[in-house]
Amino acid sequence: MRLSRYFLPILKENPREAEIVSHRLMLRAGMIRQQGQGSFTMLPLGKRVLDKVCRIIREEQDRAGALEILMPTIQSAELWKESGRYNDYGKEMLRIKDRQERDLLYGPTNEEMVTEIFRAYVKSYKDLPLNLYHIQWKFRDEVRPRFGVMRGREFLMKDAYSFDIDYEGARAAYNRMFVAYLRTFTRMGLKAIPMRADTGPIGGDLSHEFIILAETGESQVFCRKEFLDLAVPGETVDFGNDAEIAGIVKDWTTPYAATDEMHDEAAWDAIPEDERLSARGIEVGHIFHFGEKYSKPMGAKVQGPDGKEHFVSMGSYGIGPTRLIAAIIEASHDEAGIIWPESVAPFEVVIINMKAGDADCDAACERLYAAYQAAGVDVLYDDTDQRAGGKFATADLIGIPNQVIVGPRGAAAGEVELKRRATGARETTKLDDLLAFIGTAA
Amino acid sequence: MRLSRYFLPILKENPREAEIVSHRLMLRAGMIRQQGQGSFTMLPLGKRVLDKVCRIIREEQDRAGALEILMPTIQSAELWKESGRYNDYGKEMLRIKDRQERDLLYGPTNEEMVTEIFRAYVKSYKDLPLNLYHIQWKFRDEVRPRFGVMRGREFLMKDAYSFDIDYEGARAAYNRMFVAYLRTFTRMGLKAIPMRADTGPIGGDLSHEFIILAETGESQVFCRKEFLDLAVPGETVDFGNDAEIAGIVKDWTTPYAATDEMHDEAAWDAIPEDERLSARGIEVGHIFHFGEKYSKPMGAKVQGPDGKEHFVSMGSYGIGPTRLIAAIIEASHDEAGIIWPESVAPFEVVIINMKAGDADCDAACERLYAAYQAAGVDVLYDDTDQRAGGKFATADLIGIPNQVIVGPRGAAAGEVELKRRATGARETTKLDDLLAFIGTAA
Repeated sequence: MRLSRYFLPILKENPREAEIVSHRLMLRAGMIRQQGQGSFTMLPLGKRVLDKVCRIIREEQDRAGALEILMPTIQSAELWKESGRYNDYGKEMLRIKDRQERDLLYGPTNEEMVTEIFRAYVKSYKDLPLNLYHIQWKFRDEVRPRFGVMRGREFLMKDAYSFDIDYEGARAAYNRMFVAYLRTFTRMGLKAIPMRADTGPIGGDLSHEFIILAETGESQVFCRKEFLDLAVPGETVDFGNDAEIAGIVKDWTTPYAATDEMHDEAAWDAIPEDERLSARGIEVGHIFHFGEKYSKPMGAKVQGPDGKEHFVSMGSYGIGPTRLIAAIIEASHDEAGIIWPESVAPFEVVIINMKAGDADCDAACERLYAAYQAAGVDVLYDDTDQRAGGKFATADLIGIPNQVIVGPRGAAAGEVELKRRATGARETTKLDDLLAFIGTAA
Repeated sequence: MRLSRYFLPILKENPREAEIVSHRLMLRAGMIRQQGQGSFTMLPLGKRVLDKVCRIIREEQDRAGALEILMPTIQSAELWKESGRYNDYGKEMLRIKDRQERDLLYGPTNEEMVTEIFRAYVKSYKDLPLNLYHIQWKFRDEVRPRFGVMRGREFLMKDAYSFDIDYEGARAAYNRMFVAYLRTFTRMGLKAIPMRADTGPIGGDLSHEFIILAETGESQVFCRKEFLDLAVPGETVDFGNDAEIAGIVKDWTTPYAATDEMHDEAAWDAIPEDERLSARGIEVGHIFHFGEKYSKPMGAKVQGPDGKEHFVSMGSYGIGPTRLIAAIIEASHDEAGIIWPESVAPFEVVIINMKAGDADCDAACERLYAAYQAAGVDVLYDDTDQRAGGKFATADLIGIPNQVIVGPRGAAAGEVELKRRATGARETTKLDDLLAFIGTAA
């Protein structure tokens, strides 16, 4: 993408309304625009990051055996009356009437709707296990939306729902999502620690939040330091092997870890002081096992191998992709701006033409730009007539992992400079060597 | 994907509520489930088709220079009061109050919001042309939603918005979208004919609908037969060349073509009878030029090369991806079911194991399945213990373009059968030859 044809509305000033660094940097880097209370447009740069985040989420959901569907945002109140949650859910639910005065609502979550889909089609244990997920907009009418996309009213959510014949099956489904979440966050450069959590309005008896540590975290968390070194399973992990998956979950749930609300002072005091880690945390995922909470009132049952009907045992599994973007920035930035992990960077490389109009610079940049495109690399080419200092600042602010800097003196000598955003490390290289290297990646 | 682990709720009976073939086939093939009036879940098979449709739309929008963003579904009523449309738009608009009793609405379209984004950032003609698009859910509270996803209340829409300094620039932007639409529909196997159209609640003075011909079309259309043979530009078409693009638009707008409401009997009568084509049509896209209709009341202006401020000249460009799926089925099906064009097929190949449990069949199918996966082909493997006849019917119903049929006698002899869904043509081939062929595609 040529920057001259792109829409990247960088803000020079720090926006006053932004209280936390991710909100500030997303506004400054031209990633988002606020459209109302807790409601944001993803501008082109933000949309690119969102796409990469969603792609990783999808790949790991698919790998764990979940199937993608897409449910509508607007739901009938009738469904929620069946489960009993229509009255339980307070003002956070956005209630709507259509032209025929029927009661609708903007879904804050989809347990009821997916249970309705399940009961309509699935009649036998032979069709289980089943896990259906979607990535769809949700609306929760928060009293105090804030921190940008970290706590919005309209936000994107990946929510998965598992259906099994009994507790044992449901627990295996829960474990698969647990491990999928570990992999998902790791691939985004995040260290997420699973912690026992309250189940809140979703309900149920077993729940984990995945928390990343960041100074601006919304809650205090407590865990053993050993979490920082625990291994995350690679992509060869066998989701068909319940015992293997349960073993990983055991490793990740045995050491002490708790959010403020679940904290046990006695257990904490028993941990040697130099093995304790107390910090602020940001919730990036939340998983629930709630058994028959929805299947029973809504009549979602299947015939078992015993010939009898069984209410299915369910769980649900949420990740907020829009919130994740903010969490990644909270965990990875410096004074100059965002530092994207390669896996979610809006562009992998930015070519900085220090002197657009200079024949050598233009020629070198055009060759590099064509080579990266041919190699299938997401490349941004700053071909604008801004001065070099401004270009460097923009590249750092928007956090592109790799910068290729082309100046007139270097270009004339057949050389360009490479800079790593994360470390600031720079090296000079021959243009031809770089072109050859890009070619091998194609 | 192994069918035994997939969620494909085929219906044996014809659903009574479905009046048109696409609605009937989408229900029967387990692509959608109705969740409310004019509201549908895309089940896994439907979601796959939707993804492919959206991908083609994105590729052609990007090629034509449009940039993808993502605006929220819920909008503030204030914005619509600025443009004057809040009162104009009748009961079709879903109006909402939040917990603070503020007036919101579920966006039926986004001219106001995107104009707000534009005016916040863009100040100079140097940043033009600009075209921003998104693919997002819309809600229109139709009096009579029907025909499945063809006329829903909640539906997905790709809407693009162009901004230019003057009419000439806006017309060039309109032309680029016109040509992008020709390419988009052609890639989906559709023959879409652009017809002058009414502008309706969007407004403006220039508008084309893209109509495909189908017996179940919602309106009568009239055009010259020569449209059926007009060439659609290839992917090397130069969107940077305004004259080239204008030439294509001229070719596609010169012969007579009109919807019922714009039909001119005198012009029609002047066409020789054997060159006339009168048929039912389905609208699959609609583009508008409306100049300053929104930029003027909302104050969206830029400084021109003359140093003066100019209200920008705008257009908007819509395609409904969910509706497109139905239109493709209307245009491509037979008695047995859907016939997907390869470009939007949920799977490219289905492997039919005629006798799961037979050692030769299983071994041949597993080898084929692994080979297709390694080659990056979207493959469905029917490994269920259904009888062969049912498997054939399912494969035909869901419309997978290529069927590989593995029976016990053939497998023992190292042979499999290939069937093309579109033509019904069958041929027998050596398993090893097919495996080698798949390998070359990897």
